[in-house]
Amino acid sequence: MDDRVREHAETLVGWSARIEPGDDVVVDVAEGAHELAVAVAERLGEVGANMTLTYGSDEVTRAYLRAHDGEFGTAAGELALFERADAYLRLGGGRNTAATADVESGTRQAYRSARTDLREARMNTDWVSTVHPTRSLAQGAGMAYEAYREFVYDAVLRDWEALAGKMARVKELLDSGEAVRIVTEREDRPSTDVRMSIAGRTAVNSAASVVYDSHNLPSGEVFTAPYDATGQVFFDVPMTVDGRRVRNVRLVFEDGEVVEFDAEAGAEAIESVLDTDAGARRLGELGLGMNRRIDRFTDNILFDEKMGDTAHLALGRAYDANLPEGESGNESAVHVDLITDLSAGSRIEIDGETIQRNGTFRFEDGFEPRG
Amino acid sequence: MDDRVREHAETLVGWSARIEPGDDVVVDVAEGAHELAVAVAERLGEVGANMTLTYGSDEVTRAYLRAHDGEFGTAAGELALFERADAYLRLGGGRNTAATADVESGTRQAYRSARTDLREARMNTDWVSTVHPTRSLAQGAGMAYEAYREFVYDAVLRDWEALAGKMARVKELLDSGEAVRIVTEREDRPSTDVRMSIAGRTAVNSAASVVYDSHNLPSGEVFTAPYDATGQVFFDVPMTVDGRRVRNVRLVFEDGEVVEFDAEAGAEAIESVLDTDAGARRLGELGLGMNRRIDRFTDNILFDEKMGDTAHLALGRAYDANLPEGESGNESAVHVDLITDLSAGSRIEIDGETIQRNGTFRFEDGFEPRG
Repeated sequence: MDDRVREHAETLVGWSARIEPGDDVVVDVAEGAHELAVAVAERLGEVGANMTLTYGSDEVTRAYLRAHDGEFGTAAGELALFERADAYLRLGGGRNTAATADVESGTRQAYRSARTDLREARMNTDWVSTVHPTRSLAQGAGMAYEAYREFVYDAVLRDWEALAGKMARVKELLDSGEAVRIVTEREDRPSTDVRMSIAGRTAVNSAASVVYDSHNLPSGEVFTAPYDATGQVFFDVPMTVDGRRVRNVRLVFEDGEVVEFDAEAGAEAIESVLDTDAGARRLGELGLGMNRRIDRFTDNILFDEKMGDTAHLALGRAYDANLPEGESGNESAVHVDLITDLSAGSRIEIDGETIQRNGTFRFEDGFEPRG
Repeated sequence: MDDRVREHAETLVGWSARIEPGDDVVVDVAEGAHELAVAVAERLGEVGANMTLTYGSDEVTRAYLRAHDGEFGTAAGELALFERADAYLRLGGGRNTAATADVESGTRQAYRSARTDLREARMNTDWVSTVHPTRSLAQGAGMAYEAYREFVYDAVLRDWEALAGKMARVKELLDSGEAVRIVTEREDRPSTDVRMSIAGRTAVNSAASVVYDSHNLPSGEVFTAPYDATGQVFFDVPMTVDGRRVRNVRLVFEDGEVVEFDAEAGAEAIESVLDTDAGARRLGELGLGMNRRIDRFTDNILFDEKMGDTAHLALGRAYDANLPEGESGNESAVHVDLITDLSAGSRIEIDGETIQRNGTFRFEDGFEPRG
């Protein structure tokens, strides 16, 4: 086994999920993640945790969904499994990122809605989502397999404590601010000028560990839960939403809701997201990508949204970690991230002060106070 | 997909497990059983059952067991998953039948004992165990892959109702009898002459369906729960026990307990089984193999014990289905089957009457009343 697979497992179990002896850990293994599962099992055995393995197969799910009449139930036992788990480790990495492309969007939505309780129960554990680099993901990224593996381990195996220190400064800026404005002006694409409130919300320093309320490995972003968005956003980073390509999406917000949208590709996918429920038309997240080891778009949200010099906004569900204890934010069965490139012609303002220009924060070398 | 994979799934979900709309079904998918899992998911979707997938990987289990200190716990959530399930479908078929060969037997035993409750909970569901034909199983059987697939589907895809009718006659003989004697005398191997009581026990007509209290696909055996065994048995069909080869085992029983044993190969594996607990030295099962489509030894207990013209005895746990309501039989953390060939030089007597000679039952053509 490649040493990096073992290091990945160590980072996941130790740094990210903080697994302790006797913890009940559910490990979800995707079709192509077997090797990482072996390494994770070794670490869980060393720690003395209890391990339950589930199988996360897009192909099996597709067969089930296509055959089903759409009146989905949920299994009480599966709910109990997650309700009683201390941690849930999702090892992604399939064999075909388009495996569920021919499942009707109505069926997807019904299935997703039926599984809301399961999802909530998982999110109440110390959950962490990661991926094992597979050939399918390499292909999705437009990269050779070996080069893709380098890319993944560069992003995953890093000094998380050091990055956490840097991201803490961005968290401070967001926590002490009330209003965010994002502006991009580039001749070759529609502009962005959007304002949103973040008053009363707490940003998460997402340093790839549950002790930071951060549940992705890799991570490397600072995110909060905005509301009352007004203005236009142009998302120039391509995406795959529900197995469908989405490109150059433009959203117009009024009083916090999407009132107008278009897209160069995948408009139906966006429409289907927006129609899921009332919360799907409102924002659940504003995130600033700060993992500069992720230096290219690879068509995988786990990486793309953490890319250095980007921002993303998510339609749908807000994370509780951004809200005062006991309060809940925007609710929805979906959480769909869309990303915009900030590396040129851009600025972020908090309460009128520019805190980032062209991707460079004001506490970093090379920051230009004026455009 | 090969049509036979779909037929296999239909037989499993329909005939064997009798899945109904709304049933909560846990499907355990072995490393090599993905294709069968896709077909099973399709059937479960058609029926409208709820599906939870677990991953049954010998390689992952090996890594966990070898790293663990041996003080195993169990996850409350995993127990709840099985306690609340209506059915459990185990899709076997790995990539290496020797994958756990280097796990210490003490560790195996400790793990098995720690998981007793989980096993009991699974056995309280409408559980069915089957295998997808993999190259690893073909290799274990000493067969080419295509030939092995023919063998598996011949054994699985048959007219189960017709076989059930024939096996019912053997069940009647066992249910109305009190004492069984099995004798084999062949010049080239040690003899068998063992007597055991079956008074008060009920035989199971194991026709590969939960409605017959039968939990294997394929099946094709009639089994009961004997006690008070006395005498010697020679098991000439080879076996793999806990990943180790076992051949030509001789057990001597006195007052229902094994008091002496030897084996040409795998004596330590047998010793480790016998030392598990008190019940491991007593019998849990007597089975008569009646699936004549299984016409060769393939080193897989699911098939071997159902081979036509064989009998098997299991050390360890008895099945509740053989016992009067509310009573429990021999208890143990193990259930290990050992098989003897009856095709020549053999007879089975019930209460002094010969009911089978050389594999042929007395209600079949070619039965010879006298040897």
